[in-house]
Amino acid sequence: MSAYQSLKKHFETLHDLHHVEAITSWDEAVMMPHDSAPARQAALSTLRGIIHEQLVDKQVKDLIKAAQSEDLENEWDRANFKLMDKMVLKAVCLPNELVKALSKATMEAEHQWRSLRAKNDWTTFLPYLEKVVSLVKEKASRLSQVLSLSPYDCLIDDFSPGLRQQTLSPLFDSLKSGLPDLIKTITQKQAAPLPFDKPFPIDKQERLGRECMGLLGFDFDRGRLDVSHHPFCGGVPRDVRITTRYDENEFLSSLMGVCHETGHALYEFGLPDAYLSQPVGQAAGMSVHESQSLFIEMNICRSPAFMSLLVPKLNAIFGERETFTEENLLRHYLKVRPDFIRVDADEVTYPLHIVLRYELERAIIEDDLPLGELPSLWNDKMEQYLHLSTLGNDKDGVMQDVHWPAGLFGYFPAYTVGALLSAQLLEKMETALGDVEPLIRNKAFKTMRNWLRQHIHAWGSHYEFDDLVQQATGQALTAAPFFSHIKKRYL
Amino acid sequence: MSAYQSLKKHFETLHDLHHVEAITSWDEAVMMPHDSAPARQAALSTLRGIIHEQLVDKQVKDLIKAAQSEDLENEWDRANFKLMDKMVLKAVCLPNELVKALSKATMEAEHQWRSLRAKNDWTTFLPYLEKVVSLVKEKASRLSQVLSLSPYDCLIDDFSPGLRQQTLSPLFDSLKSGLPDLIKTITQKQAAPLPFDKPFPIDKQERLGRECMGLLGFDFDRGRLDVSHHPFCGGVPRDVRITTRYDENEFLSSLMGVCHETGHALYEFGLPDAYLSQPVGQAAGMSVHESQSLFIEMNICRSPAFMSLLVPKLNAIFGERETFTEENLLRHYLKVRPDFIRVDADEVTYPLHIVLRYELERAIIEDDLPLGELPSLWNDKMEQYLHLSTLGNDKDGVMQDVHWPAGLFGYFPAYTVGALLSAQLLEKMETALGDVEPLIRNKAFKTMRNWLRQHIHAWGSHYEFDDLVQQATGQALTAAPFFSHIKKRYL
Repeated sequence: MSAYQSLKKHFETLHDLHHVEAITSWDEAVMMPHDSAPARQAALSTLRGIIHEQLVDKQVKDLIKAAQSEDLENEWDRANFKLMDKMVLKAVCLPNELVKALSKATMEAEHQWRSLRAKNDWTTFLPYLEKVVSLVKEKASRLSQVLSLSPYDCLIDDFSPGLRQQTLSPLFDSLKSGLPDLIKTITQKQAAPLPFDKPFPIDKQERLGRECMGLLGFDFDRGRLDVSHHPFCGGVPRDVRITTRYDENEFLSSLMGVCHETGHALYEFGLPDAYLSQPVGQAAGMSVHESQSLFIEMNICRSPAFMSLLVPKLNAIFGERETFTEENLLRHYLKVRPDFIRVDADEVTYPLHIVLRYELERAIIEDDLPLGELPSLWNDKMEQYLHLSTLGNDKDGVMQDVHWPAGLFGYFPAYTVGALLSAQLLEKMETALGDVEPLIRNKAFKTMRNWLRQHIHAWGSHYEFDDLVQQATGQALTAAPFFSHIKKRYL
Repeated sequence: MSAYQSLKKHFETLHDLHHVEAITSWDEAVMMPHDSAPARQAALSTLRGIIHEQLVDKQVKDLIKAAQSEDLENEWDRANFKLMDKMVLKAVCLPNELVKALSKATMEAEHQWRSLRAKNDWTTFLPYLEKVVSLVKEKASRLSQVLSLSPYDCLIDDFSPGLRQQTLSPLFDSLKSGLPDLIKTITQKQAAPLPFDKPFPIDKQERLGRECMGLLGFDFDRGRLDVSHHPFCGGVPRDVRITTRYDENEFLSSLMGVCHETGHALYEFGLPDAYLSQPVGQAAGMSVHESQSLFIEMNICRSPAFMSLLVPKLNAIFGERETFTEENLLRHYLKVRPDFIRVDADEVTYPLHIVLRYELERAIIEDDLPLGELPSLWNDKMEQYLHLSTLGNDKDGVMQDVHWPAGLFGYFPAYTVGALLSAQLLEKMETALGDVEPLIRNKAFKTMRNWLRQHIHAWGSHYEFDDLVQQATGQALTAAPFFSHIKKRYL
């Protein structure tokens, strides 16, 4: 057996352990009874430790060295080997004590965040965040040495392999300069939606969600829909577990949440069978993942054509109502309004929330910005981008996201890069298949899904970000298709 | 750190991996979508392999050797160390190839069994079973060398540590000689139950089951009730997952199934906190486990007193019916009738199904009984014990159980040993607390639960079978309390 073949076998074992980890984590969020948490956390932490040990094993290092002189037959294996090499390099450069200290600090900061955010208490929260940031910086600096990237690029790369500030900054600058005026114009011309009569029983909402999932191509023989506090897409590529949450008073959010997570799921379903147990067979990072969820949610499910499919479903499931019209649904689903909270933002204001976080993260990691300055900087940027003040309202400002206490610096850009890529993919898809509106009206979801599969899903992690975008759309990522999409939809 | 302390740490890791394995296996049976099975089987098999590796690790062997000369402070640690030693000894003596070959052969035999049983095709099934038996015999013979026990005793010990044929054979002989006449007398005097009006909606059956679980003391903050094809009790001691299955046409089986599994769950809940991550903190094997499930099901939930609690619940949940009387419920729940199928048997005929299997297993493992003779021997024994012929009806005879194709030789005795122990515990409990009937009527479940906890649950695996029975009931296991219980209840 060649060294590379031995490595493949070893990564198959790792893949199996990740499978078990994914299902047990899903269970923790969806099924686990309340008091079982401590034992579960211990068990998962042990499992993750063993996965880490399997990655930094001396034998693996030797195999990688030996495989470097082997001729690999095809591009997939070469890409796979590069990914293995990078994974091991990254795992080896982080000492166990750092990993443990970071895990402890983030758990503590998250725990504090939950209560202190509710109390709007930034001052007490600050030292917990400082502890996390100092460890994240140490991590970034160590990665920086082995990857030959700047520290913040290393953190971004952890979530979106191949994505760099060099690509991000000009894109985000153009959003920053173009969006504020556009938002003003849009909000001035929008009409108020008519409210719906409550309630919307949860079992009926679930039925509606499942029907839409089926329509979009979710394979229930290889996945599930359940309920969790925070909606997510988990599980493994051939057992995809998406979740939502329900509110009896309205069906709009849960339904679009389900559509969004279905986009993530379709990506997982479409990953290449032949390399599913290997690094190259996995999804290409969070930015690409978000492009797929947003493609389904924004380009397909919030379209006028999709409303035409929704109206009869709503009437059939909830009983006929006069407010169930395409126009009124669109007014609800395309409502644009600058607001404090990122997770509730519409697709037009959302990117500005991300630009703000990107600029602050970058200053924290690369320029040693003192964290004490965050509230006032947050306020300055909110006033500049969305004309809202967060002074003295840190719970709806700098304390609103779990990402920083959880140590997830470098994650935020993925949301907006996903939105830009989603728009660029739509433009390219329409060149190939024609307008998507009639495709949606005719329920030609398989046609669109196959296009996404061919251009994105089936490539797994064969390409890093820039190359995948080039390969799928024939050009580098730009903000132009996103602006066209926004103008076409909202003006 | 002493060698024993290092071992404890190592077994804590093993415990965590078992936790993950238990939850992922539960998910496989309860949650997993159909087409995800192959990937799941691979993942679980890898995890089990890693658990095995952790057990046979050279370092563990060295630690055990070193710990042998250490003075352990208390009895619990001494018992714990003995269990560690035995686990490692057993794991080391089975070569990896044998474990894999057995796993492959049982998977194949189980797979064949599913279709061939339906076709009543013993001849085609035979070679698959022969393959399994030859590997089980090799396993038994290897265990026999390191444990200094006979081969079949080794297999029994795998499920019921400390239980031996020497204990079993006289007990089973007395059942074989005492039960047939008793069954005849009982069946002659029983009156036919009145049928209930169908249907019994599943959500209402679930509500009934949950109410009874709550009454019996199931802690829903540390466990769940779900649905699976075969009811079982899984999960881990502080996250106990029991399952049932529902049939809209009747509520009797599902309800008693839930009560039975609740008995298993209460045992797990009651295991000693301080040793939960260690071998000595685990349940003392399948015989003791079955004594706890049968105690709850047979001694408590099939009692007249429990029927008095059930009647108002049934009327409230399903609507009032004239057939919901204590007497009629008892007629249903205490119906005795010799029949072919073990899993459907009542508590009086059940032991004879087990005696039959015990005698055949023993002949297969210890006396090399040719498997081709099984159908005729099965028939002979069924005619002798229950006056039923299985000639030409192998699907309801020798092919009815999954245990043998699954390689689970040595498991069957646990069912009946559990029933005998359950009766002996009842006798002892009544000496201490007085009659259980009034306790049940007064819902004093906590009193009874605490007695079981103190005498069985809280001991974990501190004692092997015979010593635990002696400790809990003050005498060795006998069949007398079981006969008294049967006579009191049915004559």
